[in-house]
Amino acid sequence: MTDAPYELYYWSSIPGRGEFVRLALEEAGAPYVDVARDEGDEEVIERMDSDEGLAPFAPPFLVHGDVKLAQTANILLYLAPRLGLVGESERARLEAHQLQLTSADLVAEGHDTHHPAAVALYYEDQKHEAARRARHFVRERIPKFLDYFERVLRASGGEHLLPSGFSYVDLSTAHALDGLDYAFPNALAKMTKHIPLLVAHRARVLARPRIAAYRASERWIGFNEDGIFRRYPELDR
Amino acid sequence: MTDAPYELYYWSSIPGRGEFVRLALEEAGAPYVDVARDEGDEEVIERMDSDEGLAPFAPPFLVHGDVKLAQTANILLYLAPRLGLVGESERARLEAHQLQLTSADLVAEGHDTHHPAAVALYYEDQKHEAARRARHFVRERIPKFLDYFERVLRASGGEHLLPSGFSYVDLSTAHALDGLDYAFPNALAKMTKHIPLLVAHRARVLARPRIAAYRASERWIGFNEDGIFRRYPELDR
Repeated sequence: MTDAPYELYYWSSIPGRGEFVRLALEEAGAPYVDVARDEGDEEVIERMDSDEGLAPFAPPFLVHGDVKLAQTANILLYLAPRLGLVGESERARLEAHQLQLTSADLVAEGHDTHHPAAVALYYEDQKHEAARRARHFVRERIPKFLDYFERVLRASGGEHLLPSGFSYVDLSTAHALDGLDYAFPNALAKMTKHIPLLVAHRARVLARPRIAAYRASERWIGFNEDGIFRRYPELDR
Repeated sequence: MTDAPYELYYWSSIPGRGEFVRLALEEAGAPYVDVARDEGDEEVIERMDSDEGLAPFAPPFLVHGDVKLAQTANILLYLAPRLGLVGESERARLEAHQLQLTSADLVAEGHDTHHPAAVALYYEDQKHEAARRARHFVRERIPKFLDYFERVLRASGGEHLLPSGFSYVDLSTAHALDGLDYAFPNALAKMTKHIPLLVAHRARVLARPRIAAYRASERWIGFNEDGIFRRYPELDR
């Protein structure tokens, strides 16, 4: 245990994968430093390559006292019990983590709609492939993932994703749905009637006092075309 | 705690993501049932859609007494302490999990070299995109991932990936390297001199008595062109 503040290392200009961590910290009202927002993105690179502990492969990573930890879902696995954002039992934690990893799969597939050939290339250099991938993502993958989360929510009683109560996966899933809605508004509009519980769930999550305050603050970064969820109208016909 | 055997639900004809779980169970000499090998792949679908507990999004999933758990890395998170395949401390477990998730990212990117447009289509229907994605994967991503694991191994003393000792991520990383070598032998041959520790590490892992016995047994399924790592020579020029 440590009284050190949580230090989040992630790019300052996008919500990206770091946002799943920010949302958990904000919901808990935990003291944290969003390092790159204060000191610049170079700090992320410098601290990532520093010698302490196990190196991250990529941001985001969290520093907490002498703990340095990477991989979004892994950071949440560490934070959630400390922030009161998951049930106490091993089972509750594993179930939350299972959903978080599934949501991460959705996010990764969403990212690849605009980068289907190579992360190292610009979207403009892979637009042709992006159009095809996005078509399949919209037709097959979005419905498959959202139907799954709708089913999980229904099985859990409709209020929270897990029967053990509100958890960080409620935040993550609402944010992922939000991102899909930003990037693929037409596709989502067609889905809405099939996922009533999920739509109501997202509204409830975004209305939570600390989340609403966060989104109204200067700390909040909206979606944009440098992040994971990008609005390219040609991918959402 | 339960004395029930571990039941792994995964497709019977490919190593795939299930193999990371099989390797852990085999290394530990744990009693387990590879359900689809005994009873057919329909059992996987039936049990996945059954009403108990949190539904998996996709195989593999594990049933252990009244626990039913999906997502490969999450299954290993549950199994490893029970099988003695990870250090006791929270830190050791989180570090192992961090590496497992990074290895899962590599595996997912490897998969997408032959399915860059849609999982629902055949490779033959996306060969053009596959060639481009594979070119970038081979040039940029394989080196980036393998250099990373080489660096982690060096920082840890060269024998195991984590300073806390042998763990399931040693199995997973060796298997991922094995898969890359199957799918991209030319690319890997060029990499070899840059990753001497990783190459030696893989040889040591594969020579572990239980792993060697497993690979010599009828339980072992070799790589093939229905799995994650596929040998398409046109993707490995």
